[in-house]
Amino acid sequence: MPAPDARSSDARTAGRPPDDVPGSSSGSRTMHGVPPRRSSTAPTYLGIDLGATKIEVVVTGADLTPLSRARAATPARGGPPAVITAIEAAVAEALATAPHGRLVAAGIGVPGHVDRATGAVARSPNIRGWTASYPLQAELETRLGVPVAVDNDVRTALLGEHRLGAAAPYHDVLAVWFGTGVGGALLLDGMIRRGRLDACGEIGHACATPGGRRCACGRRGCLEAYAGRSSMERRARERVDKGDKTTLFTLMRKAARTRLTSGVIARALDQGDLLANELINDAVRAAGPVIASAVNILDVDAVVIGGGLGTRLGQPFSRRIHRAMQPHLLHDGRASVTVLSAGLGDLSGALGGVVLASERAPG
Amino acid sequence: MPAPDARSSDARTAGRPPDDVPGSSSGSRTMHGVPPRRSSTAPTYLGIDLGATKIEVVVTGADLTPLSRARAATPARGGPPAVITAIEAAVAEALATAPHGRLVAAGIGVPGHVDRATGAVARSPNIRGWTASYPLQAELETRLGVPVAVDNDVRTALLGEHRLGAAAPYHDVLAVWFGTGVGGALLLDGMIRRGRLDACGEIGHACATPGGRRCACGRRGCLEAYAGRSSMERRARERVDKGDKTTLFTLMRKAARTRLTSGVIARALDQGDLLANELINDAVRAAGPVIASAVNILDVDAVVIGGGLGTRLGQPFSRRIHRAMQPHLLHDGRASVTVLSAGLGDLSGALGGVVLASERAPG
Repeated sequence: MPAPDARSSDARTAGRPPDDVPGSSSGSRTMHGVPPRRSSTAPTYLGIDLGATKIEVVVTGADLTPLSRARAATPARGGPPAVITAIEAAVAEALATAPHGRLVAAGIGVPGHVDRATGAVARSPNIRGWTASYPLQAELETRLGVPVAVDNDVRTALLGEHRLGAAAPYHDVLAVWFGTGVGGALLLDGMIRRGRLDACGEIGHACATPGGRRCACGRRGCLEAYAGRSSMERRARERVDKGDKTTLFTLMRKAARTRLTSGVIARALDQGDLLANELINDAVRAAGPVIASAVNILDVDAVVIGGGLGTRLGQPFSRRIHRAMQPHLLHDGRASVTVLSAGLGDLSGALGGVVLASERAPG
Repeated sequence: MPAPDARSSDARTAGRPPDDVPGSSSGSRTMHGVPPRRSSTAPTYLGIDLGATKIEVVVTGADLTPLSRARAATPARGGPPAVITAIEAAVAEALATAPHGRLVAAGIGVPGHVDRATGAVARSPNIRGWTASYPLQAELETRLGVPVAVDNDVRTALLGEHRLGAAAPYHDVLAVWFGTGVGGALLLDGMIRRGRLDACGEIGHACATPGGRRCACGRRGCLEAYAGRSSMERRARERVDKGDKTTLFTLMRKAARTRLTSGVIARALDQGDLLANELINDAVRAAGPVIASAVNILDVDAVVIGGGLGTRLGQPFSRRIHRAMQPHLLHDGRASVTVLSAGLGDLSGALGGVVLASERAPG
C-alpha cells in the first residue's frame, strides 16, 4: 500500500472530475448516441466494477443513464496499489469522454469482504496479491475527491439489476453470479440483505455434492468447484494433461489470453467443443439443485443469473439452469420461480456502483 | 366435511370456555405446580399444535405462561372432521383443568398449506385423509366461540421459540423441524418470512443428494427422504424384509404403537440398535451440508432444531448436526452459527399457537 504522498500528481489530476474546464465539450461522447448535456454543474455519478479480470467504469447523469464508460484489465501483479492505479486510469478515461458535469459521488463493487464502517476490503481471494486489508474507500476518496461507497461486487450488481435492470419488477431476488468464482446476493423486500457476518448470499459455497470436487476454498463439493471459471480451467488443464482433445487452449492463445475467459469458453461452445460442453453441463447440473433448494427455502420472486460467464452465455444458460432446477423445485411448472439473465450485461456491477453512490450521496 | 348442524351439542359444549362456571376451581390443576388464578375475567389464550401423530393443546394466561395442557392422538381415519372432533376433546380437557378465565383467542399450527386470508388448509400431506381444502379457521371459530389464528406448524413453532423459547436472543433464525417429515421456517428481523407463494422455509425439500433417495413428495434426494421419520420407517421395513436384524419393531409393538415413533427410535438408539443408529447417521449426514448451505446463503444468527424427533433426541442430535455442518460452513469454528435445540420441547408448536392468538387478538 503506497503512502498518500507517494502518489504522482498526474494520477491525482487524472482521477479528478474535469470541473476546471467549464463549458468545454470537445471530444465528449455518450453511449447510445444520446447528445451530451452541456451544463457543467449537472451532477454526475461514477460507478466502478472491480472484477478478477477486468475493471468496468461508467459515468452517468443524475437520472443514472450512462454517459460514458471505460474498461481496463485488472492487474495480475502489484496487489491493491496496482489495482488503484488501474482504476484511476479507467476513471480518467471515462470522465474524459463524458459530458462535463459536477461529479457528486462514486460507488464501487469489489470481489471481497468489505468492512462497511470503514470501506476497507479485508481480502479479495480472486485478485492476485490482495491478501491483507486495504483502505479502498479512503484511498479512492483521496484520489477522486468525492465520497466513495464500497460494497461487495455481487450485491452491487444485484442493486444495479434491481434499480435499473432485469430485476426491477421484483421485491425478493436471489442473484447468482457466474464468473471467476460463483458469487451470490440476496435482496428481500427491495433491500440488499447483509446477515450476521455481512456474508449473506454466499451460494457459491453451498454444497452441490457432499464429498464432491475440491473447491479453491478448501471445502468439498461447493457449487463454485463445478461452476466457477477458475475451477473449469483447472479441470480443463487436468483433462488436457491426460490427453483429452479440446480447442479451448488454442482459442485462448488466438485471443492472446492467458486464462480461459468467458469469451474463449463461449467460442469453444459455439464450435461444438466437447470438453467445453462437458464443463458447462457440469456447471448447470450442479447449479440446478443448489439454486432450486435455495428457492425452496427462500420462496423468492426471481433468480437473476449474471457475472462474466453468466452474461456471456446469456439467456440460453439461464434457461438451462431453470430447467435443471425444475426436478427439485417445490413449485415447478407454471408456478415455477422466474429465472432471468442480468439485463445490464457487463454493466450490472458498474451501474450498481452508480446506484450505491446516488443512494448514499444523492446529488 | 360435516355440515355445521351435524355437530353434537356435547362436542360444542366441550369446546367452549367454561365461562359459565364462575368462581369454581374444583379439580383445576396447573403445570409446574403454579397455583391457579381465581379471577374469572383474567384473559386466557389457547394454543393448539396439530401434528401428524399427536395434538398438543396448551392454555395460558395473558403473560403466556402455561396454566394447563392436554394431548391427544391425531386420528388415523376420518380426515378433517375426525381431527376437529379430537381437537375439541383435547381443548375441553385442557380448559377443564385450567383456572377459569375469559378465553380471548386461540391459535393453531397445522402441517399443511394455509390460506392466510380464509384460514382454510389446502392440504395436509402428513395427515391421513386431509386431501382437500378444509375451512379450519371458520370451523374452529364456530366451535370455540373466539377468534382463531391458523398458520403452518413449523412457522408457529418458530414463533413460539422466538417469543418464549431458545431463539429469543436472536433476530434471524432458521428452524429445521424433524418429525414425520422435515419442515422448516425462517424468521428474519424478528418476523416470520412468508415468501412469494407463502412457501418460505421448505428446507425439507432442499436437495441433499442430487439423484438420491426417492422422497414421499416424488422428488429425488430431498433432505426429508433421509431425515423424516416416515422415510426412516419405510427404509427400516425394507431392511427388515431383506433380513436385517433390529429391535425397532419389537420396541414399537411393546409400546403398543403402529409406527416408529420418535420415542421408539430414541429407545432403540439407547439400546445400541445398529439399524436405528444407521438411520440417524444418514439423517445427520444429509442434514449437515443442507443446513450449512442454507446458513451460507442466509447468514442467520441461529438455527433451531425441533420437531417430534428433534425434540426427543435433544441436544446430542443438534450437536451432531452442527458438527456435520462444519465442513461446509463458510464461517466455521468460533465464528460458526449457533445451533440450538428447541427450548419449549413438545410445547413449541402449541405455545406458538398462543403467541399467534395473542398477537392477532391481544387480550
